[in-house]
Amino acid sequence: MTLDKTCIFCRIIRGEVPSFRVFEDDRSLAFMDINPANPGHVLVIPKIHAQTLFSLDEAWLTATTLAAQKVAKAVRKAFNPFGMNIVQANGPGAAQSVPHFHWHVLPRVENDRLPMNWPLQAGDREALAAAAERIRAAF
Amino acid sequence: MTLDKTCIFCRIIRGEVPSFRVFEDDRSLAFMDINPANPGHVLVIPKIHAQTLFSLDEAWLTATTLAAQKVAKAVRKAFNPFGMNIVQANGPGAAQSVPHFHWHVLPRVENDRLPMNWPLQAGDREALAAAAERIRAAF
Repeated sequence: MTLDKTCIFCRIIRGEVPSFRVFEDDRSLAFMDINPANPGHVLVIPKIHAQTLFSLDEAWLTATTLAAQKVAKAVRKAFNPFGMNIVQANGPGAAQSVPHFHWHVLPRVENDRLPMNWPLQAGDREALAAAAERIRAAF
Repeated sequence: MTLDKTCIFCRIIRGEVPSFRVFEDDRSLAFMDINPANPGHVLVIPKIHAQTLFSLDEAWLTATTLAAQKVAKAVRKAFNPFGMNIVQANGPGAAQSVPHFHWHVLPRVENDRLPMNWPLQAGDREALAAAAERIRAAF
């Protein structure tokens, strides 16, 4: 696995930066988005550094997508949301904030009026920890 | 392959309803969204009827996602967009308009201020045909 020294998500993979983890397998890691658009918002990433969908190897894309499906099922079970989007952004023009491929597993709240480029606002850390616990219990 | 008699996307797969096709393989079909949020907006679907990510079999999810990656690369080459999102909606609460799993390959336009639930507005059919031709040529 090729990780990047300075990439924040690579540092989360290596355990150098803390995260609220909810799922992990050989090729993928899922953890709470610390700037959640809605409660239960999880990121699912490959354990390899690739900036976008355009540069991610097929085997890693497959593994990360199957992990995202498992995570989405657990988030649904844990939060029973109004709806759910899977979203992925490529490049600053799509408001990609971290240049390491990531699926957003994004529960919807009724009348949330989410923009595609939702504003980043830090979540409460106790709420994030509690959400992670709830999702882990739903696998 | 199990298709549904009344599902509009199953009918597109069977060729009973016309579409502006851009890519096809054994398990996946890609065609222009007739209500494009931006120019070059393509849908990528599995050739099996599954309503959401929650009910889509892993092999079909994998095939459809790898097809979406190929389509995204072609759309990028054809349109050189400002950015690109991959988006998928589950359930009416996420504004899923057709209950057949689909990836949106969604090019971004600068300052498009897209909402997550973008309004559906029919595209010009000549423009859709021209966009499909441009994307097919980019594979």
